[in-house]
Amino acid sequence: MVKLLIIVVQEQDFPRLSSAFTHNHVLATKFCTEGLYLNKKNITLMVCIPKEREEEILNYIRSSCTEREEERQVSEFNGMTMVDVTKSVKVGGATVFFMDVDRMNKY
Amino acid sequence: MVKLLIIVVQEQDFPRLSSAFTHNHVLATKFCTEGLYLNKKNITLMVCIPKEREEEILNYIRSSCTEREEERQVSEFNGMTMVDVTKSVKVGGATVFFMDVDRMNKY
Amino acid sequence: MVKLLIIVVQEQDFPRLSSAFTHNHVLATKFCTEGLYLNKKNITLMVCIPKEREEEILNYIRSSCTEREEERQVSEFNGMTMVDVTKSVKVGGATVFFMDVDRMNKY
Repeated sequence: MVKLLIIVVQEQDFPRLSSAFTHNHVLATKFCTEGLYLNKKNITLMVCIPKEREEEILNYIRSSCTEREEERQVSEFNGMTMVDVTKSVKVGGATVFFMDVDRMNKY
Repeated sequence: MVKLLIIVVQEQDFPRLSSAFTHNHVLATKFCTEGLYLNKKNITLMVCIPKEREEEILNYIRSSCTEREEERQVSEFNGMTMVDVTKSVKVGGATVFFMDVDRMNKY
Repeated sequence: MVKLLIIVVQEQDFPRLSSAFTHNHVLATKFCTEGLYLNKKNITLMVCIPKEREEEILNYIRSSCTEREEERQVSEFNGMTMVDVTKSVKVGGATVFFMDVDRMNKY
């Protein structure tokens, strides 16, 4: 059974994850994306794997992407208008969505 | 239960939708995309939400994205070759796909 | 019933596929993407179609995208470090993922 993983990863963690995937023949498609809230570039990867490799892939993600706190300017709504505030936000880390694929064909 | 919404929105409607999402802490990932038929830039958002927020999110989309008619040059096949024709096409508005997510992890 | 097709297609095959889709009123959203392993630009299309059109769409893909061998430099891990090797790799062709869509709305 085939699974589609959508992985949103921060730019600073991408080189390590990309190299883990390349070493281990994980085929991925890379999208240059942006997080809406922090207005910050990130990278979204689409990976299709057999269900048995799920834990292996998650291990690459866990060891490449770490969450940490950073001071950042964000736009927030104060009830009246949008204001820029400095906030300690979590950056880094990855978000992974697991989707079922009906079928996958190659031509 | 978690839902993945894929929202294709026109450029002119994006600022309003983006601001509604930011105000209401809807986390979204932004992809710069293009509609194939009209050859026109648009924006695709990937939003992951708990099922209970579905109607709320749709309300932000409904009130930010409106469909309207515009004159545009499109390429059409006239049976012999591709020709440029001026057509009144619908622009604006959004298309929303609702997908099931097996699970979602953060690292 | 509605299906979401995610089609990863090579740059050189895209014009033919795009023209087949435009001729036949297949609405698609285009993402500029990159294959991680070969570090090569490609194009990802998201197409939403009624289930009955599945075979028709696959026919457009089959006749537009052909796989062929090419010599390419790829980075591989030789057990010690990453090395550049010339390999005969398959290029062209398309990968298609079929996903179920819960529902689809237009606004």
